Amino acid sequence: MEIKLVKNILDANDRLAEDNRKVFDAAGSTVINMIGSPGSGKTSLIMRTIENLKDDCHIQVIEGDIASSIDAQAIAEKGVDALQINTEGECHLDANMIRQAVKDFKLKPGLLFIENVGNLVCPAEFEIGENHKVTVISVPEGHDKPYKYPLIFSKSAAVVLTKSDLMPYIDFDMDKFRSGIMSLNSDCKIFAVSSKTGEGLDGWIDWLKGIRG
Amino acid sequence: MEIKLVKNILDANDRLAEDNRKVFDAAGSTVINMIGSPGSGKTSLIMRTIENLKDDCHIQVIEGDIASSIDAQAIAEKGVDALQINTEGECHLDANMIRQAVKDFKLKPGLLFIENVGNLVCPAEFEIGENHKVTVISVPEGHDKPYKYPLIFSKSAAVVLTKSDLMPYIDFDMDKFRSGIMSLNSDCKIFAVSSKTGEGLDGWIDWLKGIRG
Repeated sequence: MEIKLVKNILDANDRLAEDNRKVFDAAGSTVINMIGSPGSGKTSLIMRTIENLKDDCHIQVIEGDIASSIDAQAIAEKGVDALQINTEGECHLDANMIRQAVKDFKLKPGLLFIENVGNLVCPAEFEIGENHKVTVISVPEGHDKPYKYPLIFSKSAAVVLTKSDLMPYIDFDMDKFRSGIMSLNSDCKIFAVSSKTGEGLDGWIDWLKGIRG
Repeated sequence: MEIKLVKNILDANDRLAEDNRKVFDAAGSTVINMIGSPGSGKTSLIMRTIENLKDDCHIQVIEGDIASSIDAQAIAEKGVDALQINTEGECHLDANMIRQAVKDFKLKPGLLFIENVGNLVCPAEFEIGENHKVTVISVPEGHDKPYKYPLIFSKSAAVVLTKSDLMPYIDFDMDKFRSGIMSLNSDCKIFAVSSKTGEGLDGWIDWLKGIRG
């Protein structure tokens, strides 16, 4: 009974997500759904990406948070369009939230980053009309995460491993991390980066240039 | 309509949680619901706590994960009773999962740690029959988390800030972190600890000794 209900909600969500996708396609937006735990470094990565890419293409950002507009304010200071969605308790963005939000937002051809609510679990289940999901996970979270939270890793086009500057201080087994992801999703790209030092950002930026419409 | 449904599910959950609480009380178990993001250090903290407390009182552990039994295996190697619950996709433990699990588990007087699914958001909404909620959050997650994820901080008897050994490498503003928590929940205890070096564990252990039945 409960399972059926959840399935219906997800089906309804997927139909709205398809509509969103048509709107994004028509506007020439390539949409990246950024998913990761609180504090995994999603906002810092987006800000670094803006610095590196904003002379190449338009970048727009939608920030999803349960409460506060701290992130959208920080993004807007970089000189790009930023929209904040407050989910008021909901643990993920869904297609309807994005649909309502983009009504007030002038989409431009280029990259649209949608930063999901900080949560490695629930956002993985809800399509929002994106072209690609990207998992953002930090070195301090540990190399075992693909084994414990397989769904998001299996659905992501790329995984960005952030805070690589902390690698010397943490027991992080890169081979175990990589093989955990590859066993779920052998096409997945993996980028180890530090938004603090800039290390490793080139590969991520090149990948974004390749997927941009 | 959706809001009403969610409320009914939560009401039904709360009634089961009250039943669980009676079972725990009768057994003399003081139950701690440990909530935090993936990789926040919940399991490491529990393992360190076992080392420090197992000569004082019985400790039992229930591990909640979406998949895998990595954590329960590690706990069992410390010589305490450990039970693994796999939620198979669910992003939080609920009262019914705990009810079913403890049927196969001989409760002993002492401390029962229940490690929830790695998620700072959803577990905050579901009572499971615990005496206390404890938020586990690591230094790399950042000092802004009480502002972005207020619910769990407002409901926790204590917050354990883990990975304090990483403080020198990260811009973490302890005053902002503390005042964010205090503005939500002025009775909350805050412990900064490192499970790696042992720094700060004394205060946490003393608090546990105080709440133990």
